[in-house]
Amino acid sequence: MQRLILDQDDFERRFTRIVNDRRESDPNIDHDVREIIQQVQTGGDDALRELTMRYDKHPLTADLASWRIGKDQCKAAYDFLDQPTRDALELAADRIRAFHERQLPKNSDWRDAANVRLGSRWSAVDAAGLYVPGGRASYPSSLLMNAIPAKVAGVGRLVVTTPTPRGMMNDLVLAAAHVCEVDEIWRIGGAQAIAALAYGTDRIRAVDVVTGPGNAYVAEAKRQLYGVVGIDMVAGPSEILVISDARSDPDWIAADLMSQAEHDPLAQSILITDDAGFADAVEDAIDVLGAQIETQRTALRSWEDHGVVIVVNDLEQDAPALANRLAAEHVELAVDDPDAMFAKIRHAGSVFLGRHTPEAVGDYIAGPNHVLPTGRRARFASGLSVLDFMKRTSFISLDAGSLAEIGPAATALADMEGLPAHAASVKVRL
Amino acid sequence: MQRLILDQDDFERRFTRIVNDRRESDPNIDHDVREIIQQVQTGGDDALRELTMRYDKHPLTADLASWRIGKDQCKAAYDFLDQPTRDALELAADRIRAFHERQLPKNSDWRDAANVRLGSRWSAVDAAGLYVPGGRASYPSSLLMNAIPAKVAGVGRLVVTTPTPRGMMNDLVLAAAHVCEVDEIWRIGGAQAIAALAYGTDRIRAVDVVTGPGNAYVAEAKRQLYGVVGIDMVAGPSEILVISDARSDPDWIAADLMSQAEHDPLAQSILITDDAGFADAVEDAIDVLGAQIETQRTALRSWEDHGVVIVVNDLEQDAPALANRLAAEHVELAVDDPDAMFAKIRHAGSVFLGRHTPEAVGDYIAGPNHVLPTGRRARFASGLSVLDFMKRTSFISLDAGSLAEIGPAATALADMEGLPAHAASVKVRL
Repeated sequence: MQRLILDQDDFERRFTRIVNDRRESDPNIDHDVREIIQQVQTGGDDALRELTMRYDKHPLTADLASWRIGKDQCKAAYDFLDQPTRDALELAADRIRAFHERQLPKNSDWRDAANVRLGSRWSAVDAAGLYVPGGRASYPSSLLMNAIPAKVAGVGRLVVTTPTPRGMMNDLVLAAAHVCEVDEIWRIGGAQAIAALAYGTDRIRAVDVVTGPGNAYVAEAKRQLYGVVGIDMVAGPSEILVISDARSDPDWIAADLMSQAEHDPLAQSILITDDAGFADAVEDAIDVLGAQIETQRTALRSWEDHGVVIVVNDLEQDAPALANRLAAEHVELAVDDPDAMFAKIRHAGSVFLGRHTPEAVGDYIAGPNHVLPTGRRARFASGLSVLDFMKRTSFISLDAGSLAEIGPAATALADMEGLPAHAASVKVRL
Repeated sequence: MQRLILDQDDFERRFTRIVNDRRESDPNIDHDVREIIQQVQTGGDDALRELTMRYDKHPLTADLASWRIGKDQCKAAYDFLDQPTRDALELAADRIRAFHERQLPKNSDWRDAANVRLGSRWSAVDAAGLYVPGGRASYPSSLLMNAIPAKVAGVGRLVVTTPTPRGMMNDLVLAAAHVCEVDEIWRIGGAQAIAALAYGTDRIRAVDVVTGPGNAYVAEAKRQLYGVVGIDMVAGPSEILVISDARSDPDWIAADLMSQAEHDPLAQSILITDDAGFADAVEDAIDVLGAQIETQRTALRSWEDHGVVIVVNDLEQDAPALANRLAAEHVELAVDDPDAMFAKIRHAGSVFLGRHTPEAVGDYIAGPNHVLPTGRRARFASGLSVLDFMKRTSFISLDAGSLAEIGPAATALADMEGLPAHAASVKVRL
């Protein structure tokens, strides 16, 4: 953890270093991933069999159950949950669905003054693939956050791929797949899963969009296959920026900072406050909470390596400018007038307004998507939405009259660009 | 050119080959591009100077005019145009602006039944970079189509980079830059320009989004820097699918097919009709028109290598299914009831309805963007829009009451996922 004080000489230098620190491992795996993709593209199911044995020690056999997890298995996993957990999952799904239904875009169709008919029509992609990682990052909430926008968009075929190392499945993920009515679940992970989704094999039909988190191999495979399929934003380690005055409870703020830190040793928690004493109290509270939680090893490592406390003079004045430079994934505004501060914040993935809005409610239950731009990408990127599973077709319709009105300008521009067939296609109709 | 007939035995095999033919050169330049990017990232302006000398034979000196093209030069280029061309440019700009203004997304802010305040707020990126290629593909219309959506989105700083080989500038592009009120034009091209826009140098401040067409180096640089900056879709050679019955004028349809073919030897023009005699007439008309146009070399090469004529039995029935598999960039419906057919077409970049709507009006003047998904990417991607220059921040606000209502479900899910600090951040507030 490091503390920066706005008034100190080295502030700008140190803050700039934090802004530029991407915290993203960039292992040299382009080549390995390219080989895996090529192997799946040419070898199909045989390649998947070989790679899944090599990386997951899971044999894909003639028995379809070794390849796919059935809907009955998902239902059984759901039925096995205790009632409060089941209710919580259903409430989360309902709230996420309600939020994303409001994102559905509207079609347009109008005539302008030149009697040209114009418009746009939105439609869902035919099929979407969701990657669900194995191990620590295998979260049922993540499946909800990826699958529900796809369903709301109207995607007809929703495919999940997930590694089942040594055959091991995550029952919570299966229960979530039941809630989201996933159509197919394939027991395949890594770059090979992304390649199978992008190119298709005899068993697995290709999809149009691939989303979902994954390790470095999965991320690199998505990057390489961008354009063959649509993908969501490349995601890095999670981060939170809490802007708090001294009137917040230090225990609340400490828990918020730790909730981000416990995700990943590379996660980053930043506090901006205008009160050094409050900062001390939060740090103390982190020591206390950190000693209690099972995830302490990860959380304290993240806090030690990447945690930042920034003490400014005037919170209203100083904090938004710093927040815009950080362009953080999550921004919590634990102040009396969060709206006034939010009005000054241009770059943030999601904003949590007021002291009673811990970031964790956004991870699970509030409704907005928890798949958000990390690593300063909120400067240009948005959270996952139904739009990631849809596309827009524009359309134009002219008649003889409207072509006579605007056509000559098109031929003038075509002539200027030296494209005579373009000009001819208008002139021949005039 | 090849002709396929739906009834023939080899149709499915041949049509599948056309669907899968990406026509995209994939030269092995990853490594070269990675080196150029690294050189600019570490060497900054010195690297730009060296690379611009090497690739464009243009010396970037101490004189700022060797680096930048001034607004006065753009104005002079605009003033030099004849009146009809100037009017055509202005009409195009006005119509493109009017269309894109309707794309501006709406913010939302509401309270749900649990008294949770939720919403989304859209904002423009701070700065956008537009690449304008040199040589054959340097089109003023392309600058309009990239710059105007950025301006409409509200982008504060609009930067163009373009190569000026041996110092040569394209006056038409400068005139278009004047119309679009571009803020800066840098005389730098290739992968080095994309790297400069993404990372920034002493002279050129970094931008948040990079769009615009370019050669294979530019496309690969955008792919590699995706995530450092936002980018538009990777674009391949252009394509048109014309669906026409025998009541169209063969000369009109021939011109439409040629207008696509004249772009690039790798461009593709496809005609689907239900009348073999009409197909013959169109082919004959292409021979006639092809002999007349200055771009005949490119156009006829494209038509010979990639042109396709497909004869089906029932246009209403057969054509939409084939169109959806092709997911073409441009789809022209030269039939009596284009709306009925459009209703069946799910995958297309832009659709041109009716016999009086040649695709070229969409390239220049109609209003919708001409930057459209190619190579079957209309399955999942959309044309360029104001949304490419904006991002969405979601927000959540709870009070003690609403947290009490939905908080317990969040803690249940956090417990289930083994994230105790997430649970603690809610519990401590209850």
